[in-house]
Amino acid sequence: MKILIINGPNLNLLGTREPDIYGSRTFESYLRELREMLDGDEVEYFQSNHEGDIIDALHRADCDGIVLNAGAYTHTSLAIADAIKAIQIPVIEVHISNVASREPIRHTSLIAPVCLGSIAGFGLTSYFLAAQAIIMNPDR
Amino acid sequence: MKILIINGPNLNLLGTREPDIYGSRTFESYLRELREMLDGDEVEYFQSNHEGDIIDALHRADCDGIVLNAGAYTHTSLAIADAIKAIQIPVIEVHISNVASREPIRHTSLIAPVCLGSIAGFGLTSYFLAAQAIIMNPDR
Amino acid sequence: MKILIINGPNLNLLGTREPDIYGSRTFESYLRELREMLDGDEVEYFQSNHEGDIIDALHRADCDGIVLNAGAYTHTSLAIADAIKAIQIPVIEVHISNVASREPIRHTSLIAPVCLGSIAGFGLTSYFLAAQAIIMNPDR
Amino acid sequence: MKILIINGPNLNLLGTREPDIYGSRTFESYLRELREMLDGDEVEYFQSNHEGDIIDALHRADCDGIVLNAGAYTHTSLAIADAIKAIQIPVIEVHISNVASREPIRHTSLIAPVCLGSIAGFGLTSYFLAAQAIIMNPDR
Amino acid sequence: MKILIINGPNLNLLGTREPDIYGSRTFESYLRELREMLDGDEVEYFQSNHEGDIIDALHRADCDGIVLNAGAYTHTSLAIADAIKAIQIPVIEVHISNVASREPIRHTSLIAPVCLGSIAGFGLTSYFLAAQAIIMNPDR
Amino acid sequence: MKILIINGPNLNLLGTREPDIYGSRTFESYLRELREMLDGDEVEYFQSNHEGDIIDALHRADCDGIVLNAGAYTHTSLAIADAIKAIQIPVIEVHISNVASREPIRHTSLIAPVCLGSIAGFGLTSYFLAAQAIIMNPDR
Amino acid sequence: MKILIINGPNLNLLGTREPDIYGSRTFESYLRELREMLDGDEVEYFQSNHEGDIIDALHRADCDGIVLNAGAYTHTSLAIADAIKAIQIPVIEVHISNVASREPIRHTSLIAPVCLGSIAGFGLTSYFLAAQAIIMNPDR
Amino acid sequence: MKILIINGPNLNLLGTREPDIYGSRTFESYLRELREMLDGDEVEYFQSNHEGDIIDALHRADCDGIVLNAGAYTHTSLAIADAIKAIQIPVIEVHISNVASREPIRHTSLIAPVCLGSIAGFGLTSYFLAAQAIIMNPDR
Amino acid sequence: MKILIINGPNLNLLGTREPDIYGSRTFESYLRELREMLDGDEVEYFQSNHEGDIIDALHRADCDGIVLNAGAYTHTSLAIADAIKAIQIPVIEVHISNVASREPIRHTSLIAPVCLGSIAGFGLTSYFLAAQAIIMNPDR
Amino acid sequence: MKILIINGPNLNLLGTREPDIYGSRTFESYLRELREMLDGDEVEYFQSNHEGDIIDALHRADCDGIVLNAGAYTHTSLAIADAIKAIQIPVIEVHISNVASREPIRHTSLIAPVCLGSIAGFGLTSYFLAAQAIIMNPDR
Amino acid sequence: MKILIINGPNLNLLGTREPDIYGSRTFESYLRELREMLDGDEVEYFQSNHEGDIIDALHRADCDGIVLNAGAYTHTSLAIADAIKAIQIPVIEVHISNVASREPIRHTSLIAPVCLGSIAGFGLTSYFLAAQAIIMNPDR
Amino acid sequence: MKILIINGPNLNLLGTREPDIYGSRTFESYLRELREMLDGDEVEYFQSNHEGDIIDALHRADCDGIVLNAGAYTHTSLAIADAIKAIQIPVIEVHISNVASREPIRHTSLIAPVCLGSIAGFGLTSYFLAAQAIIMNPDR
Repeated sequence: MKILIINGPNLNLLGTREPDIYGSRTFESYLRELREMLDGDEVEYFQSNHEGDIIDALHRADCDGIVLNAGAYTHTSLAIADAIKAIQIPVIEVHISNVASREPIRHTSLIAPVCLGSIAGFGLTSYFLAAQAIIMNPDR
Repeated sequence: MKILIINGPNLNLLGTREPDIYGSRTFESYLRELREMLDGDEVEYFQSNHEGDIIDALHRADCDGIVLNAGAYTHTSLAIADAIKAIQIPVIEVHISNVASREPIRHTSLIAPVCLGSIAGFGLTSYFLAAQAIIMNPDR
Repeated sequence: MKILIINGPNLNLLGTREPDIYGSRTFESYLRELREMLDGDEVEYFQSNHEGDIIDALHRADCDGIVLNAGAYTHTSLAIADAIKAIQIPVIEVHISNVASREPIRHTSLIAPVCLGSIAGFGLTSYFLAAQAIIMNPDR
Repeated sequence: MKILIINGPNLNLLGTREPDIYGSRTFESYLRELREMLDGDEVEYFQSNHEGDIIDALHRADCDGIVLNAGAYTHTSLAIADAIKAIQIPVIEVHISNVASREPIRHTSLIAPVCLGSIAGFGLTSYFLAAQAIIMNPDR
Repeated sequence: MKILIINGPNLNLLGTREPDIYGSRTFESYLRELREMLDGDEVEYFQSNHEGDIIDALHRADCDGIVLNAGAYTHTSLAIADAIKAIQIPVIEVHISNVASREPIRHTSLIAPVCLGSIAGFGLTSYFLAAQAIIMNPDR
Repeated sequence: MKILIINGPNLNLLGTREPDIYGSRTFESYLRELREMLDGDEVEYFQSNHEGDIIDALHRADCDGIVLNAGAYTHTSLAIADAIKAIQIPVIEVHISNVASREPIRHTSLIAPVCLGSIAGFGLTSYFLAAQAIIMNPDR
Repeated sequence: MKILIINGPNLNLLGTREPDIYGSRTFESYLRELREMLDGDEVEYFQSNHEGDIIDALHRADCDGIVLNAGAYTHTSLAIADAIKAIQIPVIEVHISNVASREPIRHTSLIAPVCLGSIAGFGLTSYFLAAQAIIMNPDR
Repeated sequence: MKILIINGPNLNLLGTREPDIYGSRTFESYLRELREMLDGDEVEYFQSNHEGDIIDALHRADCDGIVLNAGAYTHTSLAIADAIKAIQIPVIEVHISNVASREPIRHTSLIAPVCLGSIAGFGLTSYFLAAQAIIMNPDR
Repeated sequence: MKILIINGPNLNLLGTREPDIYGSRTFESYLRELREMLDGDEVEYFQSNHEGDIIDALHRADCDGIVLNAGAYTHTSLAIADAIKAIQIPVIEVHISNVASREPIRHTSLIAPVCLGSIAGFGLTSYFLAAQAIIMNPDR
Repeated sequence: MKILIINGPNLNLLGTREPDIYGSRTFESYLRELREMLDGDEVEYFQSNHEGDIIDALHRADCDGIVLNAGAYTHTSLAIADAIKAIQIPVIEVHISNVASREPIRHTSLIAPVCLGSIAGFGLTSYFLAAQAIIMNPDR
Repeated sequence: MKILIINGPNLNLLGTREPDIYGSRTFESYLRELREMLDGDEVEYFQSNHEGDIIDALHRADCDGIVLNAGAYTHTSLAIADAIKAIQIPVIEVHISNVASREPIRHTSLIAPVCLGSIAGFGLTSYFLAAQAIIMNPDR
Repeated sequence: MKILIINGPNLNLLGTREPDIYGSRTFESYLRELREMLDGDEVEYFQSNHEGDIIDALHRADCDGIVLNAGAYTHTSLAIADAIKAIQIPVIEVHISNVASREPIRHTSLIAPVCLGSIAGFGLTSYFLAAQAIIMNPDR
């Protein structure tokens, strides 16, 4: 089984960016652990701060499920939402922090309605849970 | 490890209620499977259609984590949100359906801001993922 | 033919509560008259001030149609609306007063969209008209 | 007893217009049945697509009660609402479909607050129920 | 000098319609008095309950100023506003009642922004004041 | 092929009305040119300032496509929108000016959602383009 | 008969302030003309840029009617509205410009609902018309 | 004199629940002190987490005044507001915390408009002040 | 103990202003009674219709607590709110009437969030209760 | 004559993306047909999923008119709107689907106010009509 | 060159008022430093807690530019905005704190649209920068 | 001291783009003058029309302060705001025009709350003032 993780804007700074919200571990470090936990399954990783790059990555994806943390684009990018609708692969929205307890602009997700489901608030564990959701997805 | 699952209004009808949205399996049937998947961990279950009963259940809870599907009360009950804040046990919000793709009134959760995190859209698997989130919760 | 009338919060006080809006007749007195007018048809009656009780009553209903005056829960209870959607029996929303001419919060009904239809403003006669609507319902 | 039925815009097309919402029976056919059901009472009928014509008809009405399906003008015509307030005859708002389950613009009725009451969602039976409401109206 | 008074919907009922708001004098009776007060100036009068008739009347107007009480169309008719903009003759908005102290929908006038000015709240005297405003209008 | 052009309120004044927005050519003059450009196709024309007349015209239309410039009724008439839905002929919304760059009330079209498509901002050429759209319509 | 004119903030600058909106005549010059036009009636004048001064002036007023141009306080001062309600003398709201055609914040008047009536858009003539309205006020 | 104190949801946890907002004293402890301070007057106490129980308690109340801290139901329960209107006993709304300085949802009270008055922000002393207000109430 | 009472705009008219809302007793008369009831404690009094005067009074206050009825400025003066935040003395918001049952603009208090607490609806007794609250304030 | 067509995000997937909304033909295939229909005129084509690329393309455009389908950026990109305003070439907004009949977020176009005009709802024919509009544009 | 600094409500308390937001330096102390930094230029200073005083000060100003920190009146005083428009001298809005990061009511400035420009968030340095802006203003 | 200036979308066109709003000088020309004025301090410059490029530039910045004119992204890019929060360097928002006097969408800045401060409306001088603010920043 092949899973693609896409991280959006500012997530390249994980570990140094607002550590009280996002924690102090780099994503690369977590990715190694995640790949060990999911061994048997392949995990690809892509990060970009560019909305267009994320759309391009969704278009060319060739996998069984996508774990997407679109960062701030979650709340502003209808174009990413359209890209999710345009492809056949199930996409799962994840967030490290509990977005519902932050500023109002983060309470509305433009991409949630077109994803299979959403997972938020469990720190980096959100990614593991999303991968589990893909693996257990009965529609696969 | 002890996990309490609380199901809110109309979830006693799972299996017969709007099966295109909620599926055609009863929760009791799923609960047996879930307990097998989580063996080693104890899973308690409570369901009520009464907002006050859910508050009472939260107050008397004695466990490591609570998986709460508050159903329609998710969107209307500030009192349940206050109960979650009033106790020390982490609570995880789950939904069977992808609430973000349904009517606007279901896009706002009064309880999400005071939960540890939220999981929605994976059918009954949402409960398994929430249990995983409790088991893996580093703050436990 | 069997009709269930469910009255919600504060309707137990009919006859003494705000008589300029709701009139000065008790519901029990009206119920006797209604049963006479509908003889040949069976009329069951249930009243509660508890949202959860109303949901429970909807779940266990076994009749040809339900006449529901949800009182103030009309405007605040998504859970009752979900219960109506979850059962197969047609439900008719009734109001004694003309809710559209009262405070703005009473202009929005959460249950109307999932009922067969709505009748409001005719005093206690609203119940008789709703019973007629059930009896004449071609989908029965 | 004399009842006036006023049908507003597009209701002349009943039977061919959006039959999944409004049914496939012409109003003329229903009117014959209604007159039979209400024999002993006189039923007058007026239809127009012109807001001004409906106001004129309300002004010149000479009857015991008016059954008004203002169609789309229900949601946009304050002038018709003013006409209802300006006359002494009780007016009952009816709708064939359950307007509360349709587009948001149809959830607000400008005329409901000045009518005696409202009946919606019972197909053409809504007219019969409204006629009953006039006949049983204690303020007559 | 020639003044055209245009009265909109329901103003034909002045004297009988809601006398606590609009007074108990017919407009015809007031018109005689007004013509006497303004002798030397010609006063034409037009009333209709039809939005389209009012637009037509504005288009064919041939006078020095128009006194327009558009009634309920004040708050709903962008088409009348466009007609006012389309002609060269100054139009003055009048209201018998103090619309600002009535329901919120009457607080917004679609035609006020395109009129020369507005006069409201002085009973039938509003018409006399508007006529004065036309006579004293320096841009005439 | 037969095309019906319907012009709404104030469009009879084209050529003299607000020429900086609508230009200084009469519609009659343009209609002659349009008929020449579309020779082989028949072009019928109807104009009214009355909302009800436009509904009536839509009801009795017998053609392959309708080009509708509803003027101000575009933004206020749900009844015209219902008439468009009630007939089988494709309707195309046109505007002479770029309504999106004018006042906010002109940014919402009640009829656009039920038309085949919309064309706005090209002066009188908007009508020609709409005629082209009807002629090229693959669903015809 | 005694009339008090109260001018609010920035109206002391009439003649130099934004002359395209307010004209180039000082209020003192107009006041002389107005007193001549109203001879037989006494006209008192008060101006202040201080909200509290205007309230004080309303409290101590001893006259048959007040003409109030509250300037920007029209839109922000609930305290002046309360002062108007607190006294027995009729108050008429006037504006030099047509406030309905200016910025949205000027479309809402907090004082209009508690005044006898409103006159706006006629330049300095608005004051003369208001004085006329007081003189002709039947409730005096 | 007899006073009934009704405490709503989560107030049974006073002393342990969010002590920075609600303090660390149990209500039972405070109740003893309050009864001493009000000796000569009788103080009854009722607490429930169930909206319906609070309505039932209001219905069966037999006392000179009610001190009601409806907790979160303050902001969501129109049914409790209706119960207050339905009884003859004066009800005083109290809050321990200053609700106006908390989240926006707590700024609107559905019950305040139908209470005699409101007292908020004085910790448990709010109850004493409310009892004083009942004792000093001139309408008693 | 020293208490300062500050009354805002129009409260100098107590006794004559809208007596159905505010009662028919002058504040001076009540003040004498209040001083008797609170003997042992000193009560200073200040009233002004000027927002700036109230700010100045708050700045120069030298007492143990302030009872502030800001009248209409409650709903419009952020500057008074800032003054309350800028000083160290606890301020208690009082209202004679139940503001929650009046017009919507009176439902929002700009000063409540920065006061110690609020008391509304008890007539002049509200002042006595506020004085009690200051005397019993544990943070004093 | 030279026309530039710019397609925004996800339009590279035309033919496979949501074919019930966008049809099953690739844009490349349509472009060949369009070039044939417009022979004599040159048609350049650019597509990108990157907002910045579209701005860059607008800046460097050297042609007689631009046909812009900005896809989802239509509703979220003020930067593209600013780019259109910054250049001298007329831009025409096109949409394949009737955006007015889709989700509310698609009802507001940030770019429409700065385009020459808009064409929506005619499938790929929208592009042909836009090209016609450029060719017939009298301001060219 | 002559610069007038106007400070609005509560700014007389700088140094003691909310020092975490506004710092602990008095304005008088800063003013001495500012005058030294700007020697060659004259700096006048005015402070008041009265909206009317600020309007009066703007009216009588005789200088090359005004630096205005209107404090809370920034967000509530349309009258001050009108005064700025009424005079010829350029006015610069300054704020000590970053108002955009504070409560929502502070995000809207009524005076910003009529000022030359705005400077916020740099502590007392905001005043120096504003003075620089006046000195460098090319329109002077 | 090292200052980085980042210019966002369409600012590469300064000098030719909407010169009545943005002036007719190129930024390169101004940059030369600015570097002369700030000699002793180093000024780096970066411009892009790509949101992602601006985020990347903020991430890799190595300087004492950033002057950011995000152009239209100011109002739509939460991702840039997150990038500013994610880095340690103070960022100052600048605008050439007075955005508060332009369209409503430009009145809300998503980045202002996370910047040190904002400067708008002084033409290109805004950049110089921002550089001054960085140099004088006491927190540096």
